[in-house]
Amino acid sequence: MSIIKTIENLEAWLTDADHRNRTLGLVPTMGYLHEGHCSLIRAAKADNDLVVVSVFVNPTQFAPGEDFESYPRNIERDYELAVDSGADIVFNPEAGEIYVQGASTAVEVSGEITKKLCGASRPTHFKGVTTVVNILFNIVRPDKAYFGQKDAQQALIIKKMVRDLHMPVEVIVCPIVREKDGLAMSSRNIYLGPEERKQAVCLNCGLQKALEYLNSGSDDSRSVRKLIEVIENHIKGQDLAIIDYVRILDGETLEEITDIEPGKTALAAVAVKFGKTRLIDNRVLSVEVR
Amino acid sequence: MSIIKTIENLEAWLTDADHRNRTLGLVPTMGYLHEGHCSLIRAAKADNDLVVVSVFVNPTQFAPGEDFESYPRNIERDYELAVDSGADIVFNPEAGEIYVQGASTAVEVSGEITKKLCGASRPTHFKGVTTVVNILFNIVRPDKAYFGQKDAQQALIIKKMVRDLHMPVEVIVCPIVREKDGLAMSSRNIYLGPEERKQAVCLNCGLQKALEYLNSGSDDSRSVRKLIEVIENHIKGQDLAIIDYVRILDGETLEEITDIEPGKTALAAVAVKFGKTRLIDNRVLSVEVR
Repeated sequence: MSIIKTIENLEAWLTDADHRNRTLGLVPTMGYLHEGHCSLIRAAKADNDLVVVSVFVNPTQFAPGEDFESYPRNIERDYELAVDSGADIVFNPEAGEIYVQGASTAVEVSGEITKKLCGASRPTHFKGVTTVVNILFNIVRPDKAYFGQKDAQQALIIKKMVRDLHMPVEVIVCPIVREKDGLAMSSRNIYLGPEERKQAVCLNCGLQKALEYLNSGSDDSRSVRKLIEVIENHIKGQDLAIIDYVRILDGETLEEITDIEPGKTALAAVAVKFGKTRLIDNRVLSVEVR
Repeated sequence: MSIIKTIENLEAWLTDADHRNRTLGLVPTMGYLHEGHCSLIRAAKADNDLVVVSVFVNPTQFAPGEDFESYPRNIERDYELAVDSGADIVFNPEAGEIYVQGASTAVEVSGEITKKLCGASRPTHFKGVTTVVNILFNIVRPDKAYFGQKDAQQALIIKKMVRDLHMPVEVIVCPIVREKDGLAMSSRNIYLGPEERKQAVCLNCGLQKALEYLNSGSDDSRSVRKLIEVIENHIKGQDLAIIDYVRILDGETLEEITDIEPGKTALAAVAVKFGKTRLIDNRVLSVEVR
């Protein structure tokens, strides 16, 4: 087992007699693995004969001024964690391996699904994500690929890309893994100062309060406007928290809704800045059909 | 053998014990097959165990006002010709089979390669082409796919898409097949009236004259400006011919060039209208390195 850097070596591994014709799971990551990634790798190992973990900090999904340069990297530690969680190999290519000289082809999902939430503040982000995931799927050709519900919008967009383009891969979305106090795990959590770290739990708590309000039986408990207010009021109680967005949208298409309708899912999603660090979290909301 | 209409039936055929693990060639067409298509099917049969011919008039590569509705169709005849040429099956899906409900994902190659030539007069055309070819590659998953040099720009763009996205397929480009008088075969040739049909040979003759001038040893024989003039003057001699474009560009990138440089290829490409019928033709130009 080893860290594979080139497509040529990966192809040799994939087509080796011991590996071909076996089921293959792919866990695409940007590295700096935490327990959230490890849960994806374990899920992949449970479903497939072989598991490839890719570690690639994709430059095209960062806009100028975002944290591409400073994004945390530690490939040796990633390798240990990946193997301990069940990975067979770690694929860690350079950008020039993924993007050939003069590459100018993009895969883009259009519509509300990419315009809302993080698409509003990061207009080129998802085009970078769908293009690199498409490339990774073509290189690795997995049977199944694993993504975290933490990046709920990303997961919806990738599922849509796969469906629209009829890509021969099944996308599996795994639950958010949280710290003991409820903060969603993220590679960016290490940016937080001690007081910011304490207050960062407000994303999860605010979402939890919305879920409780939805089930409270109040007259306006299904009102999106009211539920957003519940979340915002909670987050605003933290003096270091600066809200980027609090939105509740259709759980599949991310189109605007005014009420949580029985039998349908909605996605409550928040993005909050602490200093330069931008955190996201979400909860799928649904009302029981009685 | 039969005409397969659904992805489900195609998938059953592809994964049948008699067909899996055999080499597979795909010839994507818009139907109304002629000898040019048949030459692609024969090439595919020579290279592969199995050959799939797709017949799909792709709505997304036609702009409003173009000939999508009137594009000639004859699936029974296409089936006979395809099988006679070596096809194992013909895949003839409805648009709703290729484009799922609410589909909004596009694959787009950007740069001069899609802006020049037909990209200038048909600005959304190649986005439709790359998206549908990407989908067909994902559905059929061929080892090799066959395209005609007749649509030289399309072939370059598809090769670039495959390279940029690391798609696991080899793109093979086959030579232009011509009528006895030199007119490049095209499904649209049937639109031509008798006098238009006679004059239509001027595309090929003009290109031939440019090739002759390039090899004439004249001082300006490698000048793109001069070679374009040679082609235009010839075509303008036909009173029914209306030039859409005559261009000579870099043979790989379609970037502007001023001279044909030894050791490099250039693409001389023409589009000419006869009434409502738009015909294209091309010649790869190169100068021997002495």
